[in-house]
Amino acid sequence: MLKMAKKIRTQLSKKKVGQIPGSVIYTGVKSNQKLFIEAFDYTKDHYEERELTNVEECFNFEEGSITWININGLNHVDAIEKIGEHYELHPLVREDIVNIAQRPKIDEYDDYLFVVLKMLYYDSNEKIVSEQVSFILGKEYVLTFQEAEGDVFDTVRDRIRQGKGRIRNMQADYLLYTLMDAVVDHYFTVIEILGDKIEDFETAIFSGKVDNDVSKNIQDLKREILKVRRAIFPLREVINRIEKNDTSLILKKTITYYRDIYDHLIQVTENIDIYREMIWSLMDMYMTTISNKMNEVMKVLTIMASIFIPLTFIAGIYGMNFEYIPELKYKYGYFVVWGVMITLFLGMIYYFRKKKWL
Amino acid sequence: MLKMAKKIRTQLSKKKVGQIPGSVIYTGVKSNQKLFIEAFDYTKDHYEERELTNVEECFNFEEGSITWININGLNHVDAIEKIGEHYELHPLVREDIVNIAQRPKIDEYDDYLFVVLKMLYYDSNEKIVSEQVSFILGKEYVLTFQEAEGDVFDTVRDRIRQGKGRIRNMQADYLLYTLMDAVVDHYFTVIEILGDKIEDFETAIFSGKVDNDVSKNIQDLKREILKVRRAIFPLREVINRIEKNDTSLILKKTITYYRDIYDHLIQVTENIDIYREMIWSLMDMYMTTISNKMNEVMKVLTIMASIFIPLTFIAGIYGMNFEYIPELKYKYGYFVVWGVMITLFLGMIYYFRKKKWL
Amino acid sequence: MLKMAKKIRTQLSKKKVGQIPGSVIYTGVKSNQKLFIEAFDYTKDHYEERELTNVEECFNFEEGSITWININGLNHVDAIEKIGEHYELHPLVREDIVNIAQRPKIDEYDDYLFVVLKMLYYDSNEKIVSEQVSFILGKEYVLTFQEAEGDVFDTVRDRIRQGKGRIRNMQADYLLYTLMDAVVDHYFTVIEILGDKIEDFETAIFSGKVDNDVSKNIQDLKREILKVRRAIFPLREVINRIEKNDTSLILKKTITYYRDIYDHLIQVTENIDIYREMIWSLMDMYMTTISNKMNEVMKVLTIMASIFIPLTFIAGIYGMNFEYIPELKYKYGYFVVWGVMITLFLGMIYYFRKKKWL
Amino acid sequence: MLKMAKKIRTQLSKKKVGQIPGSVIYTGVKSNQKLFIEAFDYTKDHYEERELTNVEECFNFEEGSITWININGLNHVDAIEKIGEHYELHPLVREDIVNIAQRPKIDEYDDYLFVVLKMLYYDSNEKIVSEQVSFILGKEYVLTFQEAEGDVFDTVRDRIRQGKGRIRNMQADYLLYTLMDAVVDHYFTVIEILGDKIEDFETAIFSGKVDNDVSKNIQDLKREILKVRRAIFPLREVINRIEKNDTSLILKKTITYYRDIYDHLIQVTENIDIYREMIWSLMDMYMTTISNKMNEVMKVLTIMASIFIPLTFIAGIYGMNFEYIPELKYKYGYFVVWGVMITLFLGMIYYFRKKKWL
Amino acid sequence: MLKMAKKIRTQLSKKKVGQIPGSVIYTGVKSNQKLFIEAFDYTKDHYEERELTNVEECFNFEEGSITWININGLNHVDAIEKIGEHYELHPLVREDIVNIAQRPKIDEYDDYLFVVLKMLYYDSNEKIVSEQVSFILGKEYVLTFQEAEGDVFDTVRDRIRQGKGRIRNMQADYLLYTLMDAVVDHYFTVIEILGDKIEDFETAIFSGKVDNDVSKNIQDLKREILKVRRAIFPLREVINRIEKNDTSLILKKTITYYRDIYDHLIQVTENIDIYREMIWSLMDMYMTTISNKMNEVMKVLTIMASIFIPLTFIAGIYGMNFEYIPELKYKYGYFVVWGVMITLFLGMIYYFRKKKWL
Repeated sequence: MLKMAKKIRTQLSKKKVGQIPGSVIYTGVKSNQKLFIEAFDYTKDHYEERELTNVEECFNFEEGSITWININGLNHVDAIEKIGEHYELHPLVREDIVNIAQRPKIDEYDDYLFVVLKMLYYDSNEKIVSEQVSFILGKEYVLTFQEAEGDVFDTVRDRIRQGKGRIRNMQADYLLYTLMDAVVDHYFTVIEILGDKIEDFETAIFSGKVDNDVSKNIQDLKREILKVRRAIFPLREVINRIEKNDTSLILKKTITYYRDIYDHLIQVTENIDIYREMIWSLMDMYMTTISNKMNEVMKVLTIMASIFIPLTFIAGIYGMNFEYIPELKYKYGYFVVWGVMITLFLGMIYYFRKKKWL
Repeated sequence: MLKMAKKIRTQLSKKKVGQIPGSVIYTGVKSNQKLFIEAFDYTKDHYEERELTNVEECFNFEEGSITWININGLNHVDAIEKIGEHYELHPLVREDIVNIAQRPKIDEYDDYLFVVLKMLYYDSNEKIVSEQVSFILGKEYVLTFQEAEGDVFDTVRDRIRQGKGRIRNMQADYLLYTLMDAVVDHYFTVIEILGDKIEDFETAIFSGKVDNDVSKNIQDLKREILKVRRAIFPLREVINRIEKNDTSLILKKTITYYRDIYDHLIQVTENIDIYREMIWSLMDMYMTTISNKMNEVMKVLTIMASIFIPLTFIAGIYGMNFEYIPELKYKYGYFVVWGVMITLFLGMIYYFRKKKWL
Repeated sequence: MLKMAKKIRTQLSKKKVGQIPGSVIYTGVKSNQKLFIEAFDYTKDHYEERELTNVEECFNFEEGSITWININGLNHVDAIEKIGEHYELHPLVREDIVNIAQRPKIDEYDDYLFVVLKMLYYDSNEKIVSEQVSFILGKEYVLTFQEAEGDVFDTVRDRIRQGKGRIRNMQADYLLYTLMDAVVDHYFTVIEILGDKIEDFETAIFSGKVDNDVSKNIQDLKREILKVRRAIFPLREVINRIEKNDTSLILKKTITYYRDIYDHLIQVTENIDIYREMIWSLMDMYMTTISNKMNEVMKVLTIMASIFIPLTFIAGIYGMNFEYIPELKYKYGYFVVWGVMITLFLGMIYYFRKKKWL
Repeated sequence: MLKMAKKIRTQLSKKKVGQIPGSVIYTGVKSNQKLFIEAFDYTKDHYEERELTNVEECFNFEEGSITWININGLNHVDAIEKIGEHYELHPLVREDIVNIAQRPKIDEYDDYLFVVLKMLYYDSNEKIVSEQVSFILGKEYVLTFQEAEGDVFDTVRDRIRQGKGRIRNMQADYLLYTLMDAVVDHYFTVIEILGDKIEDFETAIFSGKVDNDVSKNIQDLKREILKVRRAIFPLREVINRIEKNDTSLILKKTITYYRDIYDHLIQVTENIDIYREMIWSLMDMYMTTISNKMNEVMKVLTIMASIFIPLTFIAGIYGMNFEYIPELKYKYGYFVVWGVMITLFLGMIYYFRKKKWL
Repeated sequence: MLKMAKKIRTQLSKKKVGQIPGSVIYTGVKSNQKLFIEAFDYTKDHYEERELTNVEECFNFEEGSITWININGLNHVDAIEKIGEHYELHPLVREDIVNIAQRPKIDEYDDYLFVVLKMLYYDSNEKIVSEQVSFILGKEYVLTFQEAEGDVFDTVRDRIRQGKGRIRNMQADYLLYTLMDAVVDHYFTVIEILGDKIEDFETAIFSGKVDNDVSKNIQDLKREILKVRRAIFPLREVINRIEKNDTSLILKKTITYYRDIYDHLIQVTENIDIYREMIWSLMDMYMTTISNKMNEVMKVLTIMASIFIPLTFIAGIYGMNFEYIPELKYKYGYFVVWGVMITLFLGMIYYFRKKKWL
């Protein structure tokens, strides 16, 4: 948990206070990433895949084909700047691409759309990582910018290569859709794992296996959900604006597909909200479990004490050293006292049982 | 409860990550269901009911009559695909029909409306089951798709057969209405059973018959209500959009009937919200009951201890072995001490009674 | 409380599942009510009041005068049907009139407005009863439908009879207004009684007269308020739609009066919300009272035990039977021990007082 | 608190159930107030102030000058009626003027605006009083109606008399503005006192000076804030409608001033909301303080008992009367036992200190 | 905390009740501030920076260049008045500039825009200070008004001096943007420190280092966040209105930059809301920690008492002085009793361990 609080601060502090608007400054932590650019260029009948060795190669794709250029390594701000200049991106867009503290958003410019998403996945420490991916949709191209290599786009690559589905028959707007769809699809995987964690907690709490970390772990879960919410919720607004959009960059027949993403997002967000409620219930149940356990302990004390305190009193009476205590002289006095005590004992047990305290 | 968490995950995980948009892949668990197709074809004067043995038979109904084709068995994706092609359904519609993790929704296409609902019923284990039903409303036909045989449409079948009510005089939009109305009517049955369960809980809690499962059972109830909400709430939006709709598929005079469904939905959702509040109150009352019970137990201890601790102290005093304790020599010392103790005892009883602790 | 849960269920279950839309089926419980119809017919100069013996008599009122027909006894569905046919009411309207589980609503038809309200009153068992009243506003008539005789319209009858106020100079829309105003006016009486109950609770709780029923009674109060809310809140929307309405049935100059009803409704709903908050506060205060009481009890135990446990220990010491305990031989040993004990006792009393625990 | 609950009821019950709409019936409690009318009549160069002895004098002001007539004493319904007739006020307006249970509102009529506000002040018992003031804004006049003499308008009177500020150069709409501004300005005084009370509570709770009344006093504070909210919140809507208003009664250049009132209202309502949150926090802190105190008491018992119970047991062992207990014969047995006990005692003290329980 | 409550009151009480609208009265506390005016005048090629010694110098800047006049010292109301007259500011604007209790807002006038913001920073006591800054945007000038010297605009000054970025090529609307951006940028610094504080608390609570001040400190944190919220939230609306604005003062190409501020504000407000949730969770965790600690203490008592109470009872039995207690005569009676006691002791330890209470 501490780690996450630090993470938030880190992201914020990277925004240099007083920085000139439009400055292209990388705000992430992966500063020794190597630049890796891959390009796909395809028409209905033909496709070409290249790994580019320098930025300028991005610029010589012909018209008439759809081009997808995927740039990895946001720390190479010079390269980003060059691409930005070639594609005539607004200075603020260039700044936002390398500033990884963006919320998911869409900005519409005259010749292109700028979309920012968060790609979610679990890292090797079972922590949710939220990586920023920026998209530029132009007339015949899509640019994607990622912090580092490794993404959820392999299925898209395969479909381009093998011409599966409609992708090779459609325009750049459909390519953007498949890429965004791949990101959103992956959210299902993430929240499925979240669901597993919550289920494990439930099992643990119902079986009474609770330790002092439960409260801390529940806090951690709450924050993971908070993180996922932050990444996913604003996205609905993004898709919404794409649907309502009147730019010529998104064709009318592709809108249906974006609406499909929207439906998926609603499903994901509904599940997130259900998980939120579940976690609150978990906390409640945990509290109830703790308090029931404590009550059980207290009840034992209560009953022990309530039974033995009067008996000890009786024993105390006949431990007094008065010279004249008639009962002490009776031959069977001792046994009578035992009798009284056992009667009292059984009477109280009976009373407690009747009251359902035992 | 654990089961339900698993259910959610199951539904989610069935959405194959990276699946090509428009792939018709069944996501449910009833994979050995046999295909069962029934068709009704009727005009004002005439009606015909057939059980179809293969999919192609669905396609040869004449114009001028209203046709209802009810397809059961979503695992038969080939059949679904064939129907989809014949009726020219959009690929995403075909995908949604067999993907049973949809939210209730309406999608409007040029020639048809696509509506998804959830049919709710209690299964043999007293668990609420939510089964997806998809409707296609065309100019002169309604298609319904269900996971398995068995539904809430028997009253509609009877009305077509016997020409009861207006159904045979109306168009396909009225048929869709009667089918949706049948689904919504059944919600009343489901929430009535929910109401019964809540009432039973209330009786149990007020009569003090609470055990450790109460908290778990209340959790289960909360989730059932959550499930019902998820199935029913989005439906209001669906009906709303049908009402506001300007397609020629829904006639103006039928809108009134849809508004009636809307009113029913509002009643159902209001009752759900009341049940939600009741359950929260139940939890509160349960907590209060538990804590009152504990307090009662504690009070007994307190009073026992408060009374006997001083008495035992007095007995202890005269149990000391000092050589010179004058009281011990007094002939009636023992009886005087008893007198003091009984006075103390009665005094404390009186005090506690006055304080209303007893 | 249990009763109410049952009531809700009852209302719901009466809606026959699978019933043909537009079926006129009475869903209430007062099935042996006799049919009672009264009619008022008036112009500016003249008025006539009749008690009708059969339904057909409702139909022969002349044009040019305002007619109010008040039908009591919804179990007489045949009569309702006849009236419905004569006044050409939509089948769904006829169904809604006799289905007493409606929410307050307004439906606009071409020739008439259909308004449903809830009349609230306390019955002889001090329980709030919510009785449905339906209004049909036509061009020159108002029809009202009630479950049983007895209502809040006596002041309206008097005003028609005696020509008091503006009623005889106005149209049917003003008659509808006065009737609705009478219903809303009565809400003030109902919430005034609610306010009394809450005040009594407050007095009881502050004076510490709390028993185990408090929690149950507070639940009952919460539900009464819930019931009142359900009856009143949707009404605001109804009035709102009357105000915004562009039908020719409501004259522009009458709108001002409806706005006055709206203001009253806002006052009522504001008071309901204040009562809701008060009840939550009551529950809090009750809890605090209970817990303060418990704390007081616990404190007595704590202090008793803390004081006497060490003293008893000292007595125990000198009750030991060691052969050589020098103190026991001292002549004044006993008195010294007493001195020590009393000093300890006073010291602890002083300490507790200083700590403000006593 | 009880008083306030009664007050609410009183206000409600004064609305006569079944009263004819438009009946001018005073609903307040100050029924022996004498009628007091003052009038200001001014132009840029000239002003006149009169105390009117009867109502008719209100009617003979000339055109061309701005007239403010301030009527005190709503129990004089005849006078109000006469004024209402002369200025052609709608019957519902007349009814609302004397019915002091209005919410702040604005009603627009053809020739005048009707505004109702609540004037707030602390009475001599340190209770907030909410007095209704009604305003009629006509073309060249403003009428104000108050329950009794004494108001917050003295600064306005002075400005008219001395021609300070813009008031004498402006129209009647500016006069209405200054009057409303005076009312809103006074809200600051009221919530400042509220703030003082809350601060005093805070000081008391942090210094631990809490008694049983705290809970009751916090309830009282909550209700005062509720009362203030009810008086102030609807006013924002009123000002809003004045701003959006297209009547010719409010000049465009005066709108800016009304917007200023709106800003003040937002400031007041923000402060009220902050106070609300503070009070909730106070309640929490109070609860924490109470429970911390209790815990401290319990801890003392726990430690006392945990230390002395085993020691007393040891003393009990050697108080047994067995014929053969070897330790009792040892010469230093007694001192050894003391040694054991002191060791145990110190050991437990050390353990508790280590655990930070002491 | 007390300080803050006082602060709120102070701000409120400074608004003189009954003050004439448009009176220019300074409401802050820094009344001995000296007047300090600096002016920047620049075109694309040229820039001039001056420290003005009197107000009149503000008025002689030529057309064609952008002028920024920064006035510090709101207590010098005469100077403010003179500037207000020269620039023809509305009286209410002049009043608002020196009334430091404004909410962030924008007012649009014909020739200029009036914007009020709050500048946030931590003072030397680690308290958040919220200082009001007012902006007037005219055709070729920006005026800024601050309470005292010292601000967050140094980076803007440097950019003007050194011609860095676009600032010297743009109009006055861009200057306003850079100034507002500097203020918003600083918010990141403030909430970063807030984040640090919350993190420190978390570490403290998880490591169990909690003292009685925690509750008070959490209250303080809550209020700081409240303060920050109040300063920042209304600003979103301000930027929104700038974006939607149709005045010619803001050029279309600058809107994009304002949208960038908006994005930053959303990020800040999202973080504030996350911090709010964190603090609530902290309070919960603190409560849980406290209560767990208490439970642990109680458990020790329970177990101690439950074990030793029966043992002491047994010792009491054989401390009785009956003449005939056969066990006392047995040679090994004493050792047998020890055996029984040790068995009981171990048995109970075993039982408690099995129950996981130990």
